[in-house]
Amino acid sequence: MVKYPKRNFLIILIAPSGGGKSTIGHEILKRNENIEYSVSYTTRKPRFYEKNGKDYFFVSEKDFLEMKEKNEFLEYAKVHGNWYGTSLSYIRRKNETGKHILLDIDIQGAKNIVRSGIDAVTIFILPPTEKVLKDRLIKRDSDSSEVVSMRLKNAAAEIDEIGNFQYLVINDELEKAVQTVQSIITAEENRVERYEKIKEIFYGVNND
Amino acid sequence: MVKYPKRNFLIILIAPSGGGKSTIGHEILKRNENIEYSVSYTTRKPRFYEKNGKDYFFVSEKDFLEMKEKNEFLEYAKVHGNWYGTSLSYIRRKNETGKHILLDIDIQGAKNIVRSGIDAVTIFILPPTEKVLKDRLIKRDSDSSEVVSMRLKNAAAEIDEIGNFQYLVINDELEKAVQTVQSIITAEENRVERYEKIKEIFYGVNND
Repeated sequence: MVKYPKRNFLIILIAPSGGGKSTIGHEILKRNENIEYSVSYTTRKPRFYEKNGKDYFFVSEKDFLEMKEKNEFLEYAKVHGNWYGTSLSYIRRKNETGKHILLDIDIQGAKNIVRSGIDAVTIFILPPTEKVLKDRLIKRDSDSSEVVSMRLKNAAAEIDEIGNFQYLVINDELEKAVQTVQSIITAEENRVERYEKIKEIFYGVNND
Repeated sequence: MVKYPKRNFLIILIAPSGGGKSTIGHEILKRNENIEYSVSYTTRKPRFYEKNGKDYFFVSEKDFLEMKEKNEFLEYAKVHGNWYGTSLSYIRRKNETGKHILLDIDIQGAKNIVRSGIDAVTIFILPPTEKVLKDRLIKRDSDSSEVVSMRLKNAAAEIDEIGNFQYLVINDELEKAVQTVQSIITAEENRVERYEKIKEIFYGVNND
């Protein structure tokens, strides 16, 4: 197999709460050795099962704001009173490993990354209908009906933003949605502008 | 399954002679009920196994030039003394069937379609190296060494044009190349701008 070098990129999954983003993200990471997860910084307290450096980098508000002040974040957002952010130098370091980087960030952060002009593939995940989304949120059990109502309201605002992103995947059947995301990644890997040395390789010697 | 209506598009495979375009095109048509082949008009004589209306619409030079005069072609080109063209009204009719349309046209025609602004997905197919391309051309047997040399020279000019197209698929292993083209089609089907009624369907009634 002749190897053509190609530039890697960020993969951003966006979805309303209950859209199935985390499940799809986990499947994608499991199936692709060439994709790594981007660990965000946060000021929220770790849950008992969360590991520093794996789920998040847990930092104090003081440290977070200092990083923010120094423009060290590619994107950041305050959600429910806690800060979340993606470190630019962290992404640059990951990028040099030659792998794609999967980001699990909120819609505001995703829009900021799109605006930054960094090479990112943006995929919005949507349940097939509002009714399905509602059923999924209710089945989560832990959420009160007020929380469910709030999440449905947020979903409506997020759907208005779909036009800011490149792809829309309807998460009707999970496996089908995962495969569609997988196809999007394969397609994006083969975009002409990501190839770096077409002629050198095609005409190169010792290539067999 | 909830059905979200999406706009269909043209699929244009481009490749140097010997690139494997026809084989890949046939596989794609075989595996996708929602893709139809676009039959071109030509002034060249039919080969004994070719059927009018299936392989080409075989027309006289007079008829072809008349269609050309009336701007009835989406693209046309003269290759080795024969005219080839894609009828615009034919594409429009096919388009209304809700299927994607696969076009097997030369690089000049492909560039003209890109310039026309019609919604087309353009995929350049390239053998892994010049050596492989040469071997494939020689194995065809029927071609003299002068013809092979000419085809290699043409390939060099065509490779210079890759930047005009969206995707590049290296045809190293046929099955892998077919699957990559398949992924590109799936990805393009899920581009946000091809969805027509996101909110109507998401919030619609009687959708289960």
